[in-house]
Amino acid sequence: MTAAHSLAESVLRDLTAIRAKNPVVTSITNYVVTNTTANALLAIGASPIMSHAAEEMAELMVFSGALVINLGTVAPEYIAAMDPAWAAADKAGVPVILDPVGAGASKLRTETPLALLARHKAFIVRGNASEIMTLAGQSGETKGVDSTAKSDDAAGFAQTLAKRLECAVVVSGEADQVCTGQASARVLGGSALMPRVTGLGCTATAICGAFAAVNKNPFEAALHACAAMKVAGEMAAEKASGPGTLQLYFYDALYAMGEEDIRQRLKVEL
Amino acid sequence: MTAAHSLAESVLRDLTAIRAKNPVVTSITNYVVTNTTANALLAIGASPIMSHAAEEMAELMVFSGALVINLGTVAPEYIAAMDPAWAAADKAGVPVILDPVGAGASKLRTETPLALLARHKAFIVRGNASEIMTLAGQSGETKGVDSTAKSDDAAGFAQTLAKRLECAVVVSGEADQVCTGQASARVLGGSALMPRVTGLGCTATAICGAFAAVNKNPFEAALHACAAMKVAGEMAAEKASGPGTLQLYFYDALYAMGEEDIRQRLKVEL
Amino acid sequence: MTAAHSLAESVLRDLTAIRAKNPVVTSITNYVVTNTTANALLAIGASPIMSHAAEEMAELMVFSGALVINLGTVAPEYIAAMDPAWAAADKAGVPVILDPVGAGASKLRTETPLALLARHKAFIVRGNASEIMTLAGQSGETKGVDSTAKSDDAAGFAQTLAKRLECAVVVSGEADQVCTGQASARVLGGSALMPRVTGLGCTATAICGAFAAVNKNPFEAALHACAAMKVAGEMAAEKASGPGTLQLYFYDALYAMGEEDIRQRLKVEL
Repeated sequence: MTAAHSLAESVLRDLTAIRAKNPVVTSITNYVVTNTTANALLAIGASPIMSHAAEEMAELMVFSGALVINLGTVAPEYIAAMDPAWAAADKAGVPVILDPVGAGASKLRTETPLALLARHKAFIVRGNASEIMTLAGQSGETKGVDSTAKSDDAAGFAQTLAKRLECAVVVSGEADQVCTGQASARVLGGSALMPRVTGLGCTATAICGAFAAVNKNPFEAALHACAAMKVAGEMAAEKASGPGTLQLYFYDALYAMGEEDIRQRLKVEL
Repeated sequence: MTAAHSLAESVLRDLTAIRAKNPVVTSITNYVVTNTTANALLAIGASPIMSHAAEEMAELMVFSGALVINLGTVAPEYIAAMDPAWAAADKAGVPVILDPVGAGASKLRTETPLALLARHKAFIVRGNASEIMTLAGQSGETKGVDSTAKSDDAAGFAQTLAKRLECAVVVSGEADQVCTGQASARVLGGSALMPRVTGLGCTATAICGAFAAVNKNPFEAALHACAAMKVAGEMAAEKASGPGTLQLYFYDALYAMGEEDIRQRLKVEL
Repeated sequence: MTAAHSLAESVLRDLTAIRAKNPVVTSITNYVVTNTTANALLAIGASPIMSHAAEEMAELMVFSGALVINLGTVAPEYIAAMDPAWAAADKAGVPVILDPVGAGASKLRTETPLALLARHKAFIVRGNASEIMTLAGQSGETKGVDSTAKSDDAAGFAQTLAKRLECAVVVSGEADQVCTGQASARVLGGSALMPRVTGLGCTATAICGAFAAVNKNPFEAALHACAAMKVAGEMAAEKASGPGTLQLYFYDALYAMGEEDIRQRLKVEL
């Protein structure tokens, strides 16, 4: 059995678990993607809750399989819920996925994730190249919330960050970089149209949450999430006539994706 | 004339009224579904306003045909507007539709709708089985915001709640349960894909608002809204390849739905 | 070379510049359209940032090509960011596009844009007929956030407003009215389905931001944005079966729109 074949099997195993267990993934996320990431989570089989009410976080963590903290909306009323939510997740043993949207674009967007990471341990940190490079201490690479660097160029920074934070780090891009301090992989595929749909990066973060809810190994959960995103993106691109239709076919693909799709389309370099 | 035939006629009459009058439906709703419920309201012929600015509620109620209060986002800045909005609706004689999203999932999500209902009279309360059972006093049935109970199992609880609140109650599910203290109905149809699209429950609530704006009878307004949802869902499912495309074809169906569609597809047990 | 031909060339020139430069368009916008306007900006080639965090506005303006201020959500936490953001844009020389959503529907929605315009100079103000007539001092024409007046009837008011504010004014409608104190144009085309999709007006405002980022002439930027909207709307309507599918094909069209599409479909009366 080849490594790629074996990986397809383990992606499938987790996907089957998500579809069977419908794990709750609670998200404090930005108002651009609340709808689209909830749809992605439902399509893959998870049960999303979107909330930034600090008051209910301890209760939600009791039955949540993962907590997603996405920094796309850095308004005070959103940020205020993140630390208590993460503390509640820590207490309940719920894995936390952090998305440092726009890190490097403003002081607030750089400092907020760093302050959270100084107080809590993430299970997976996922961002684009600019964001991960910023968190790793490299400055001056971001123009807004879209990356100006390539994911391959951020691989070393991702490894540094993964070692420092003792978690898995994902750099999304033409090739997704997935690493911990010990292991790394590149996931290929997807579609060049994907960056022209808003929030597919945030969607990757949400999907990391779905896999984290069924797989206690952060490297595997992150890798499987990237695999699902790339396979679904490739499936969607075959039907789409542009970024608008791509987004819809993407949900259809997350929902329909089966054994053959993953076996035939998965392209990972371990 | 059969009861089913007569019902199709009265759904059509209200639908025609919505399309002719374009009633304003004002919604304080959650940030997951602001876009999608506004699109559903526009597609069926209503004119949506989404706001949680307490300051303007009295003015908006002057020309609103219905007020939708949806508890999906229970952050303080959203909740704060609900009581003044409802008071303004009461004063202006505007029917209020309440959606207790996630009741049972946290103390906040259970107590907030109960506190509002203790102070104001709803026209229609719409939720999934877990939410309606929670409001009726049955505890421990919710895992997150998706229901863990079946709508048929909640029928008795819905009736209890409808009697206590003196309003119509809808339990959405595989079969929608619609009741008041005096009458009840089951609406069948739709598609098994519908729960895999986020916010179609919230959309049913919004569509209740559109029908409430043209029909003063809460049971009829609720029943017609469920009928429109199930017919549109069935029409959409025939074209969809998954939950992503379903959502889009669903708006198309709400917009295009005509006499023949309703007559042929409506499945109601009175 | 005819005027229409020459206009198609200049729309194309700006469109090519947007696609080449990917200008950052920062938006303080309403929670109904954060996702859809971000998608429209990405589809046409711009790089959107959606934020209402006052704290980061000065930093964002350093690399932003335009600032969009949309008044659809008039909650205090949104309004609070608008004046500091606009001040930061003024300081950085960034053009500001204002969308007075629902002006006339409530005191708050009328007074907030007027207060902002009393303190700052807009590059473009875009609204529907009721909104522009309200800002121009005509009262009593709005029912909610959808216009009750026709765009042609607002042409005179738009000119008055453009003179007073010394900016370009756009009235969206069946025919888009574009004017400054000195010039005016009507842009035809699009689709009758467009008003049945929520936020396509807000999308026109966002697209004005994309063109403002590459064209320093407010009349041209506004006119080119309206042209792109009408051409994309017409392209989308040919494929759509209703408002749901229209929205998706609209993004596809913004993304794919080429020389021939603009030359053949552009209908402008100068």
